[in-house]
Amino acid sequence: MTKNLNGIFPPIATPFDARGEILIEKFRENLDRWSKYGLAGLTVLGSNGESPYLSDQEKLLLVQEARARVEQEKTLIVGAGRESTRLCIEFVRKIADLGADVALVGTPCYFKAKMTDDSLFAHFWAVADDSPIPILVYNVPQFTGVNTSASLIEKLSSHEQIAGMKDSSGSLPLQAEILRRTPDHFKLLVGSAPTLLPSLIQGACGGIVAIAGALPAQTVELYEVFAEGDWKRAAALQERLTPPGAVVTTTFGVPGLKAAMDLMGFFGGTPRLPLLPLDDKQRATVASVFHEAGVLEPQAR
Amino acid sequence: MTKNLNGIFPPIATPFDARGEILIEKFRENLDRWSKYGLAGLTVLGSNGESPYLSDQEKLLLVQEARARVEQEKTLIVGAGRESTRLCIEFVRKIADLGADVALVGTPCYFKAKMTDDSLFAHFWAVADDSPIPILVYNVPQFTGVNTSASLIEKLSSHEQIAGMKDSSGSLPLQAEILRRTPDHFKLLVGSAPTLLPSLIQGACGGIVAIAGALPAQTVELYEVFAEGDWKRAAALQERLTPPGAVVTTTFGVPGLKAAMDLMGFFGGTPRLPLLPLDDKQRATVASVFHEAGVLEPQAR
Amino acid sequence: MTKNLNGIFPPIATPFDARGEILIEKFRENLDRWSKYGLAGLTVLGSNGESPYLSDQEKLLLVQEARARVEQEKTLIVGAGRESTRLCIEFVRKIADLGADVALVGTPCYFKAKMTDDSLFAHFWAVADDSPIPILVYNVPQFTGVNTSASLIEKLSSHEQIAGMKDSSGSLPLQAEILRRTPDHFKLLVGSAPTLLPSLIQGACGGIVAIAGALPAQTVELYEVFAEGDWKRAAALQERLTPPGAVVTTTFGVPGLKAAMDLMGFFGGTPRLPLLPLDDKQRATVASVFHEAGVLEPQAR
Amino acid sequence: MTKNLNGIFPPIATPFDARGEILIEKFRENLDRWSKYGLAGLTVLGSNGESPYLSDQEKLLLVQEARARVEQEKTLIVGAGRESTRLCIEFVRKIADLGADVALVGTPCYFKAKMTDDSLFAHFWAVADDSPIPILVYNVPQFTGVNTSASLIEKLSSHEQIAGMKDSSGSLPLQAEILRRTPDHFKLLVGSAPTLLPSLIQGACGGIVAIAGALPAQTVELYEVFAEGDWKRAAALQERLTPPGAVVTTTFGVPGLKAAMDLMGFFGGTPRLPLLPLDDKQRATVASVFHEAGVLEPQAR
Repeated sequence: MTKNLNGIFPPIATPFDARGEILIEKFRENLDRWSKYGLAGLTVLGSNGESPYLSDQEKLLLVQEARARVEQEKTLIVGAGRESTRLCIEFVRKIADLGADVALVGTPCYFKAKMTDDSLFAHFWAVADDSPIPILVYNVPQFTGVNTSASLIEKLSSHEQIAGMKDSSGSLPLQAEILRRTPDHFKLLVGSAPTLLPSLIQGACGGIVAIAGALPAQTVELYEVFAEGDWKRAAALQERLTPPGAVVTTTFGVPGLKAAMDLMGFFGGTPRLPLLPLDDKQRATVASVFHEAGVLEPQAR
Repeated sequence: MTKNLNGIFPPIATPFDARGEILIEKFRENLDRWSKYGLAGLTVLGSNGESPYLSDQEKLLLVQEARARVEQEKTLIVGAGRESTRLCIEFVRKIADLGADVALVGTPCYFKAKMTDDSLFAHFWAVADDSPIPILVYNVPQFTGVNTSASLIEKLSSHEQIAGMKDSSGSLPLQAEILRRTPDHFKLLVGSAPTLLPSLIQGACGGIVAIAGALPAQTVELYEVFAEGDWKRAAALQERLTPPGAVVTTTFGVPGLKAAMDLMGFFGGTPRLPLLPLDDKQRATVASVFHEAGVLEPQAR
Repeated sequence: MTKNLNGIFPPIATPFDARGEILIEKFRENLDRWSKYGLAGLTVLGSNGESPYLSDQEKLLLVQEARARVEQEKTLIVGAGRESTRLCIEFVRKIADLGADVALVGTPCYFKAKMTDDSLFAHFWAVADDSPIPILVYNVPQFTGVNTSASLIEKLSSHEQIAGMKDSSGSLPLQAEILRRTPDHFKLLVGSAPTLLPSLIQGACGGIVAIAGALPAQTVELYEVFAEGDWKRAAALQERLTPPGAVVTTTFGVPGLKAAMDLMGFFGGTPRLPLLPLDDKQRATVASVFHEAGVLEPQAR
Repeated sequence: MTKNLNGIFPPIATPFDARGEILIEKFRENLDRWSKYGLAGLTVLGSNGESPYLSDQEKLLLVQEARARVEQEKTLIVGAGRESTRLCIEFVRKIADLGADVALVGTPCYFKAKMTDDSLFAHFWAVADDSPIPILVYNVPQFTGVNTSASLIEKLSSHEQIAGMKDSSGSLPLQAEILRRTPDHFKLLVGSAPTLLPSLIQGACGGIVAIAGALPAQTVELYEVFAEGDWKRAAALQERLTPPGAVVTTTFGVPGLKAAMDLMGFFGGTPRLPLLPLDDKQRATVASVFHEAGVLEPQAR
């Protein structure tokens, strides 16, 4: 049975030192700190974890470390996308062995023009067939140049091992059509903080949003307030969350998220090359956006 | 000193059986057959080699096998792009140890919006600094969603270990500007068969074009006739080569190239998932385009 | 003072006979029918009015006719975009003379790459300077290939004759940033039905949405229920409205809107060439989407 | 019978004073000056004539003036594209009455997603049916966001009143496929200077290129040298022409062309809003590119 997918799951960053080596102690400290908020779980090896920049050995290490620290009742989602179907299956098996609860499988995208619905269907179906754990289809057209159609997702939703999808397109009409066409047990997780509340209103079950790594309390509060039915307060919280949410994604990407984490008391640090760290002026912009959003001060609930 | 980069270098396909396992005997047979034409060398682990679908172990095996069969005076180019700068450097070192002459390094592309000229410069410069062999920058925007600017290439051309670039954009104005801004020893290799002759006329030194894997004689003939100065005959050959060149790339991609190789007596076979093999109708289209181009019959020179 | 811009304003279609001549009687009948719902006004000469296909003479005729039938307390918005600043000013003056309340001015877009923020600022500022009536900036990137930035809109919002904007991008983050950066009196009208409620929640004041031409009662109901604070019922209405809203825009465009109008008792008819009317199968799709949405039957409130 | 379409036809600029009024004397002087070179004719009301910024009255005036000054044996091509099929037909008739030899009809593009091959076929076929003069289909995806497929052009080429096309896509593979699929009498005119020679080599009959308005002698020389069979000298001329050709299009557009005309002794002047004139630094760039290309000095032939 699929672990709980309702709620907020930060796609966590990977801490590196100035030479690009993983700082495993910092990784652990961040995990311990995230465990203090009402997060439903975590995502490791996502885009924000700079997964494309990690070796296989490093990836498995991070999964092990995360599993050791994420409580059993929380859901450990692990990024597992690969261009090749067979390599994807191989990797999903490895992370399942290490205790991952759910595999987050991005669309293959190198040969964009050939990634038709038929190709993508063949890929996800084969991965689901051989996966020991439930999978989430991960759609992030801004990175992949590939977009999943509602009819593709509809077909995939009939596989019992495909638990749902993470959609980072930010397209509410696409999400609405997917929710209309898929069974109730098929879960939609939002991947873009600025559309978190509207997606929840439409029927999404939660979010895997970068900002939750820097502002876990505020992101969880938004979700909980919505779940309790106080949509107007949720809208006010969304308004406050949107600018920080945009600054750690659209504006500055992973280096921005890491700067924001530094600001909020987590360890962020520098990204791996070819990502460049923020310069001083960019860091000041992050700080200023967070300040204006009123999230730098301790928040009373 | 950089090995010769003038001439035609097919980016060779990787043969798989129906279950997706590498058929190393077929790989060798294809290599032996290509050695009979006047090719200047070969490219392994390129896009057409389904490089994104190979494990590291498989990649190194193919480099070894290729080096064992490609004559020493010919140039062995090896695809070596990675998203991460450090993983790219690590891999370039490994293929250099196995006898690769030149590393073909694609642009990182996952975080497209952050792949600015500064990021790409940092990446290629660092790889070149640590590479034991010369590198070629590989620009293929149709797959990566990232395009290299002329000013980026101009800056990179001052690194003595950056021997040139492969450009698959098909943009003659971009290539013209790059040739104008870079020193004479900086080599431009074309990556799209339908613009092979115009690029040669502009100053490109050769081509890494998929069609050369299926039609080596005709592609080499075009290059040689051009080099001898008979541009009008070269134009006639280009006209004949363009439709087959398009059918194995834009129209049908790698599965199309493999079908064309089967047609021409090489071993093509099926691609790995998520690429789907051509169906019968698509195969018939390939055959018909090759027939109309008059390349199915034995060619007298 | 700007007329009321809160509420729902259908961008109305232009009825043609089979030879493409305007059917002015049908235009009047449609206007009379729309007047029975709680619409805040109407938009003539919008994209859905096939404005790019009308002669200047026809355009002025439609404005006259609309003004004669739209009650004085309702707001008559008139599409007035032109590629050229001077021609735009000239046209805005003409429609103001005919009684238009607000001019809806689309971004010039022919020389896309030159339509920088500076160019667009110069255009809109000059038009606003010379316009006798308030204007709305109209952003519709799917048609124009040009997108207005939040900082452009922020600068334009300081002109007292620029009352607000219509945004059809469907981008909630863009709208949120615009609302954050502009004064309270600057109005944001939504141009895409599937994001109507989320935009209202964010602070939009109303919508200019195609579906309101076919389903005025349901669109107005959504707005009113939201305005009364019953967001949950509004969400249910949004869910019902989204598929019809998509079918008359993304899926089938203006020909789809006209088919839907025929279905709902308005006169839709055929579009002008080069738009092609829906074929029978496409019309059946429209009917089926409307049927499934439960909007074909009389709705009790 | 269609007038001659082989050779070089500058798409001429429209001179305005600082307030944006047409300077008809300057227009005439430019025409007289162009008549001294071996141009095959001229194009008025093209993109470079800022056609989208002219009123109908102004357009007709310019056609009249051009016809009065372009010798009868030269070909007067007139831009006549409209979004609406009926308005396009109406306008084609008017320019035919004024002595236009050929109408250059751009693809409608406002409702991009609906401009399918079927829509575009219906448009061009209807215009050709009712046009008193031959038409050229005009493909310029960088401005319209619409691209004509080879199969659309193949079908259109069977209409006896469709004499050919102007393609500004710069795509050699597209042009090659069109030339392969259309009858010999169907003419392809190139619309991008940097690909002029390669297109001629492939079978294009001439060019409608902006740079010919500023550098008529050099553009005509390239064409003539090619026609005489001296391809190598043509390649050298192309290399010299490419940077100026790019600076008046991709880099700076129409304002750049006008600055270049000022530089070469024609009257260029300022564009109409929303196009902004070049600032001093940009003008200096134009001058520097022309200087480096060696086209500022008197050229001996």
